Amino acid sequence: MTVNMTSRDMMTTLGRAAREAAGLLALAPAEQKNQALLAMAAKVRRSAADILAENARDLEAAKAKELKGSFLDRLTLTGARLEAMAKGLEEIAALPDPVGQVMAKWTRPNGLEISRVRVPIGVIGIIYESRPNVTADAGGLCLKSGNAAILRGGSDGFHTSAAIVACLQRGLDAAGLPRTAIQMVPTADRECVGLMLEGLGGTIDLIVPRGGKSLVARVQQDARVPVFSHLEGICHVYVDKAADTEMAKAIVLNAKMRRTGVCGAAETILLDRAGAERNLKPIIATLIDAGCEVRGDGACQAADPRVKPATEEDWSTEYLDAIVAMKLVDGVGEAMCHIAAYGSQHTDSIVTEDRATAERFLRELDSAIVLHNASTQFADGGEFGFGAEIGIATGKLHARGPVGVEQLTTFKYQVRGTGQTRP
Amino acid sequence: MTVNMTSRDMMTTLGRAAREAAGLLALAPAEQKNQALLAMAAKVRRSAADILAENARDLEAAKAKELKGSFLDRLTLTGARLEAMAKGLEEIAALPDPVGQVMAKWTRPNGLEISRVRVPIGVIGIIYESRPNVTADAGGLCLKSGNAAILRGGSDGFHTSAAIVACLQRGLDAAGLPRTAIQMVPTADRECVGLMLEGLGGTIDLIVPRGGKSLVARVQQDARVPVFSHLEGICHVYVDKAADTEMAKAIVLNAKMRRTGVCGAAETILLDRAGAERNLKPIIATLIDAGCEVRGDGACQAADPRVKPATEEDWSTEYLDAIVAMKLVDGVGEAMCHIAAYGSQHTDSIVTEDRATAERFLRELDSAIVLHNASTQFADGGEFGFGAEIGIATGKLHARGPVGVEQLTTFKYQVRGTGQTRP
Repeated sequence: MTVNMTSRDMMTTLGRAAREAAGLLALAPAEQKNQALLAMAAKVRRSAADILAENARDLEAAKAKELKGSFLDRLTLTGARLEAMAKGLEEIAALPDPVGQVMAKWTRPNGLEISRVRVPIGVIGIIYESRPNVTADAGGLCLKSGNAAILRGGSDGFHTSAAIVACLQRGLDAAGLPRTAIQMVPTADRECVGLMLEGLGGTIDLIVPRGGKSLVARVQQDARVPVFSHLEGICHVYVDKAADTEMAKAIVLNAKMRRTGVCGAAETILLDRAGAERNLKPIIATLIDAGCEVRGDGACQAADPRVKPATEEDWSTEYLDAIVAMKLVDGVGEAMCHIAAYGSQHTDSIVTEDRATAERFLRELDSAIVLHNASTQFADGGEFGFGAEIGIATGKLHARGPVGVEQLTTFKYQVRGTGQTRP
Repeated sequence: MTVNMTSRDMMTTLGRAAREAAGLLALAPAEQKNQALLAMAAKVRRSAADILAENARDLEAAKAKELKGSFLDRLTLTGARLEAMAKGLEEIAALPDPVGQVMAKWTRPNGLEISRVRVPIGVIGIIYESRPNVTADAGGLCLKSGNAAILRGGSDGFHTSAAIVACLQRGLDAAGLPRTAIQMVPTADRECVGLMLEGLGGTIDLIVPRGGKSLVARVQQDARVPVFSHLEGICHVYVDKAADTEMAKAIVLNAKMRRTGVCGAAETILLDRAGAERNLKPIIATLIDAGCEVRGDGACQAADPRVKPATEEDWSTEYLDAIVAMKLVDGVGEAMCHIAAYGSQHTDSIVTEDRATAERFLRELDSAIVLHNASTQFADGGEFGFGAEIGIATGKLHARGPVGVEQLTTFKYQVRGTGQTRP
C-alpha cells in the first residue's frame, strides 16, 4: 500500500493524541464523564441548525452522485433524529460507570488479596458508513467506558459527522476533558482506513466496524488489531412439533417483519416435520398476508401456492428485507445441524412447549444468543438491559452478543500484600 | 507462501477433525472429561519407559546438532518430570469445570430471563518450543475447558511429544471421547505453523504461543486469528520512600532471584530518590551478595562500586538471568512514567507503607497485574488460585494475566421467554 506521508503523519499524530487522552480518561471520575455527556447533548440541541445545514450539504452531494434511497434515508438528519441523538447521549450518562467495578475479589491462603477490576480498553477505532447517529453513539459509549475514540465515518456523511464531533468535543471541553478523547479522521481519504486497520503504530487497541457486509468483511480481512463485529445475522426461528401454533405465528411474524433491516431479523424459518400439518399453513399465511415473500422447500410450496421455490443459496442469505426462507426439518437435531451449517452464530430461537427440547437447543447451539419462546428481534443491547450498544459481536472472544459499555472494558488484577515473597 | 499440497491437505483434515471434536467436547459432562484426564495420567505413568526412550532419541539428535545446555535441559525428561506431568493432569481433573457455569442471570421487565453461560472457545492451537511438559499441560487444560487442541511443539522434541500425545489420546479413548480432541501436527514441517497462524480455513479460534520472544513475536506478527500471549515480562519493583527497608529487600530479592528465568521475574528496580539514603545501599548489597549483577544509574554506581553502569537499552531488556537494572526516580509519578515507557504491561509491584501511594499505583498503572507489598513472582495461575495455566496474557482483550481453564472459555446468552415479541 502506498500512502502519502501527509496522511500517515496525520494519522500517527491522531493515534498518539488518542493514546494520551486514553491515559487521562481511564482515571476520569464518573461524574466528569457524565458532565461531558450531558454537555454534549445540550450542545447537539443548541447546534441543530448548524448540523442540519451541514447535513443538507452532504445530502445534496449524495443526491448528485445518484446514491440510492435507503442510503439517503440513513444519511438524512431531521429535528426528531437530532433530538433522539441528544437523548441517546443523556441515556448513556445515566448508565452505571463500568470502570473501577470490582468483578471478583478473593484472598489466598498466604494472605494476598486479589481483585479483578474493570478498566477501559484504551483506544477504540470505529469505522462506519454514512450514518450520522453512529458518530454520537460511538463517541458517547467510548467516553462512558473510559476509552478514547477515533471515528472514521463514511465520506458521504463527512460534513454532518464533523458538525456532530464539534458538539461532542465542546462537551468534553465543558467538563475539562481533553478534546482528543473523541477525534474524527479529518479527511475522507480512504487510505486512512487502512492505517487504522494496521493499528496506527500500536495506538489502536480495538476496531469496531458498523455497517454492511462488505465494510465488515473488509475490516475482518485486513485488521491487524482485534475487531468486535458480526459479518451478518442469519438468524433462525425453529418451530418445534410441540410449539403452540398461535405463539409460533406471533414470534415468526415479529422475528421476520417487525423490522426487516436489523441484524436480529429472522432470515430462515425451520419447521418440525412432525408438527407441519398443524403449523405450516398458518405460519406461511401469516407471513405472506403481512407482505413477506416466502421461499420454501417442496413441502412449503405444496402447502401454499404463493410460496416460491428456495434454492441452496437462500439458506445462507441475509435478506434484510421482507423475504424469508422456510423448510421442514426432522426435529430439533436436524434444525441445529442446519443452523450450524448455514447460520452466522448470531441469534437463533426455538418455539416449543417441550421444556427438555428447549433446554437442549439452548445448551447445544453455538450462537451468541439463543432464545426459547421469544423473538430474535430481542438481540439488542437495550432489550438486554445494557443500555445503548455499539453493535453485536459474533466472535468468540471478549464480547459476544450486544456490545454495551461494560463490553468496552477489560480488567486488571490488583494484588494487595503485606510483604509476601514466593517460596 | 508456497506450501506443498500434502501439508495443506493434512492440516485442513486436522482442522476439520478438531472442529468436529470440539462440538462433542462442548457437550461432554465434567465427569467424562475428568475420567479422561485421570486415564491420561495413568497412561503417562505406565508408559514412562517408552516416553523416556523417545526422549533419549530426541536428545541424541539435539546433542548431535550441538544445541545449548539450557535447551537440552528443557527438552530432557526424567522419571521425576514424568511424574510431575502425570500429577499435573490429575490436578487439572480436580479443578472445577468452567463449562456451563452461569456467570450472570437477570430478568427483564417483559419477563425474559437472560443468562450468561460459560461455553468453550472451540479449537485452540498451541505453538510451543521443545518442552515436553507443555504437551501434557496444554492438552489437559484444553480438554478440561471443553476445547479441542491442535499441538505443534518444537521439532527437536517431536518424538517425545508424539509419545506423550499417544498417552493423552489413550486417555480420551478410555473415557469415550474422540481422539481428535487432542491432535499433534504429525510432521516437523515448519510450514504447518504458517497454516495454523492463518487459522486452518476458519477452524482455529485461538492461538496460544508458548516459548521465547522470537517465537511469540512471530506468532503475534503473522497470526490471522486471536492470540493469547505475552511477548516479554519486563516487570518492575518500585521501592517508595515510605517503604519498609527490610520488606523492600526481601521483595526485591525474591522478585529478581527466586527464579530468574520466569516471565514474572523483576528486571528493573526503581527506587524513590527521597528514600534512597535509607534504602539504596542495603538493596544493592542484598542483590549483589546473592549473586546478581546490578546495572545502575549514576546514583546507584556512587552507592556501591560493584554496580555497573546501565545504558538506555537496559531499561527495556528482559534479562531472564541474574542481572537487574536499577535507577532512582522522583516518587511514584516518575516510577509509573518509567514503567509505562519501558514496561510490558505484565506485572509490576510497589513497596510502601503509605496506603494512598499504593492505591494510586494499583489504580493508575495499566499492567495486567499490579501488586502492593508482594513479589512479582506471584504472577502465576497457581498462585492466583486458578490451578494450572497455559500462560500469561498481556493483551487487553478477553484474557489478561494468568490464563487458566476459566480464561479458555467464552460465553453465550440463553434467553428464556413465554412468547415475547418485540413491540
